[in-house]
Amino acid sequence: MNKYHMNKQEREIKDNNEIAEILKNGKYAVISMCRDNEPYIVTLSYGYNQSENSLYFHTALKGLKLDFIRSNPSVCATVIDDGGYNSGQCEHSYRSVVFWGNMSIVEKLEEKKLGMEVLLNHLEDMPGPIKERNLKNDKVYGNMTVLKLNIEQISGKKGK
Amino acid sequence: MNKYHMNKQEREIKDNNEIAEILKNGKYAVISMCRDNEPYIVTLSYGYNQSENSLYFHTALKGLKLDFIRSNPSVCATVIDDGGYNSGQCEHSYRSVVFWGNMSIVEKLEEKKLGMEVLLNHLEDMPGPIKERNLKNDKVYGNMTVLKLNIEQISGKKGK
Repeated sequence: MNKYHMNKQEREIKDNNEIAEILKNGKYAVISMCRDNEPYIVTLSYGYNQSENSLYFHTALKGLKLDFIRSNPSVCATVIDDGGYNSGQCEHSYRSVVFWGNMSIVEKLEEKKLGMEVLLNHLEDMPGPIKERNLKNDKVYGNMTVLKLNIEQISGKKGK
Repeated sequence: MNKYHMNKQEREIKDNNEIAEILKNGKYAVISMCRDNEPYIVTLSYGYNQSENSLYFHTALKGLKLDFIRSNPSVCATVIDDGGYNSGQCEHSYRSVVFWGNMSIVEKLEEKKLGMEVLLNHLEDMPGPIKERNLKNDKVYGNMTVLKLNIEQISGKKGK
């Protein structure tokens, strides 16, 4: 875990509710990974499980990000609430969170189901028909990877 | 450099002009760094210098990202053109680029000036007055760090 210290203290978001709100409202996270000290970045839609302070993702069965996670499960990620650049003012409006944690590949069917439930409830306005259409047969879980990121440390920042 | 291979070939953006357009239109990049195989992520406003295929950033004189860059200048970054989540369709509209390269701390005054020129021309609709106001005295360059990311490999992707 890095000893992160914000240079501009006045930009720090200290309210945990506001930090949770950014995670609740975000649709995707950008995730930094390392393997043999080489960096990689991926962007994934997510579902936030506030009660267990974790994010769920789904992806294909194979791919470079899974190779990275297997080699080193420590990740650092960000969710940005982008308010846009303010032309003429030399500044960008945003709220963001940066968090550190452990990424794991979910193996158990029951937790894969929970992960997809969290993900679709988070992303979709009306998740019911989507679940009905795509997740009615347990076989689908054999064709996807569900990932879980346990958040261990988080900080929030805003600029405007 | 990672042997990156896109799972869904139909999502790959192969047109270099479209890739350059994403970099030209973006306002910030999210950058993945590694130190001692530990990941870190930062989001920075940038200026794109198309002729030399590089991005410029500016930051404070000290900070964790500079410690990471000094330890390991290899970075992997992304710029996302976010079209928003399409509720009911289980998909997110986006165009994005992921690129690998080397981050360096610009030392020479003349290149720091070029970097800030590129950055403000990129970000601002009317950069003239901003430059006039903030960069008229060379002393300001002593109070900032200018970073340069040379892009060595890039790939583009779109989803909808």
